[in-house]
Amino acid sequence: VLEQEKMIGVVAGVGPLAGLDLLGKITEQTIAECDQEHLAVVSISQPGEIVDRTAYLLDDSLPNPAVAIAGQLRRLAQMGAQVAGIPCNTAHAPAIFTAVQHHLSTYGGHSVHLLHMIEEVGLFLRQQFGQIKRVGVLSTTGAYQAGIYPQILQPMGFAVVVPSWAEQESLIHPAIYDAEFGIKACGRKSEQARENLLVGVALLKDAGADAVVLGCTEIPLVIPEPEVDGLAVVDPTLILARALIREAAPHKLRPYSEVVG
Amino acid sequence: VLEQEKMIGVVAGVGPLAGLDLLGKITEQTIAECDQEHLAVVSISQPGEIVDRTAYLLDDSLPNPAVAIAGQLRRLAQMGAQVAGIPCNTAHAPAIFTAVQHHLSTYGGHSVHLLHMIEEVGLFLRQQFGQIKRVGVLSTTGAYQAGIYPQILQPMGFAVVVPSWAEQESLIHPAIYDAEFGIKACGRKSEQARENLLVGVALLKDAGADAVVLGCTEIPLVIPEPEVDGLAVVDPTLILARALIREAAPHKLRPYSEVVG
Repeated sequence: VLEQEKMIGVVAGVGPLAGLDLLGKITEQTIAECDQEHLAVVSISQPGEIVDRTAYLLDDSLPNPAVAIAGQLRRLAQMGAQVAGIPCNTAHAPAIFTAVQHHLSTYGGHSVHLLHMIEEVGLFLRQQFGQIKRVGVLSTTGAYQAGIYPQILQPMGFAVVVPSWAEQESLIHPAIYDAEFGIKACGRKSEQARENLLVGVALLKDAGADAVVLGCTEIPLVIPEPEVDGLAVVDPTLILARALIREAAPHKLRPYSEVVG
Repeated sequence: VLEQEKMIGVVAGVGPLAGLDLLGKITEQTIAECDQEHLAVVSISQPGEIVDRTAYLLDDSLPNPAVAIAGQLRRLAQMGAQVAGIPCNTAHAPAIFTAVQHHLSTYGGHSVHLLHMIEEVGLFLRQQFGQIKRVGVLSTTGAYQAGIYPQILQPMGFAVVVPSWAEQESLIHPAIYDAEFGIKACGRKSEQARENLLVGVALLKDAGADAVVLGCTEIPLVIPEPEVDGLAVVDPTLILARALIREAAPHKLRPYSEVVG
């Protein structure tokens, strides 16, 4: 059986906490009774060479982070990774992700199957919730302005609902970036960030969302539960972890019912 | 400055949770104001090919796990790792660790500076507590029977205090391995495991220990605090994380006073 399992590769430096979160979720979502039954995973966290993704989206005269990301994916492939993921929503903006795919395809040598985290979220929503139409998305202001989720989910048949600009600026952005209480400054301990984001979830519910995607890898740190007031909240890092296991060793993927239950 | 920093390599599959813990502690113990300032870290978690360390110590007709560990270190070196660590106490038994070093030295190609987690614990105890003489150690029964800590710490000038065999069997071993409440089964949520191990710390204190080493990577999951009843408890995974940062980028190592404070 071991021979049939694929090795997973993780671009773990975008950012380092998201990388750790993905590695942890791969372990948690794997059915394993002892150390030896866990999947083979290689990761590179080399954040210094990957320029800020949002900065590039807002100013494309800057270097495209796709070059460094593709270089790291290539090294993961050389290490044996056959399927890989990038736990960063912004890196899945078409302007970056398409360039990553292009750089990968022009390399010789080992190839690696790179999953698309946000498309996986769309596939998950379709599979898990069937009829769902309106999907709410909370994200950084960079991802909001770049319209990453609408660009990817709308062609998959979803209507995407986001906070108003005023709500984005007054509630969501500070929850992630505020120097006093933002998640980047405080990590999972920020009660204020959680409060702001729960208001954000409620606003999207009022706007008709049938589920809400926590579209920034920091947000699930303060909203770890799979449902808020009966509304499903979806963690893309968890979905990516599960998709990687599905590709690497489908028989070792924990049932999703265990995650929700 | 970036050019002078070394890349860290982690053998992350012995076991997978210890690997994640080490990766998390490297991130926590690094002074970084943004993603890009975090250190470069590569990790391999390929637990399937590394046979159980304790099993080998108890029966040396089994294959030595050193061969697979050295192979993974070599691949980390090929990826660019210049300093590396193995977050597994048992892998530091002389019968395994010396063989790892031997295999590494006979390879051609890239070299990597492999730190010795338990020697780092000894260096830390000496540096942090100066006069300390008697060091208590809690560990798995395998490490206990193999006498790993005494073999390494006694030549460094410490007297090593361990639980009696009866205490090891009735309190410490079940805290790690019990199918109902052991840490391997329950993770950090096991109150019973924590209780058992706190009794173990108290017994070692009564036996004259000036500090206690949590000499199994699972134990700090339930005793995360740096002191118990005024007695220092030392987490070797944390010490290894700090030693790796010290070697890779000393100016980015958080002061230990912040860990204790």
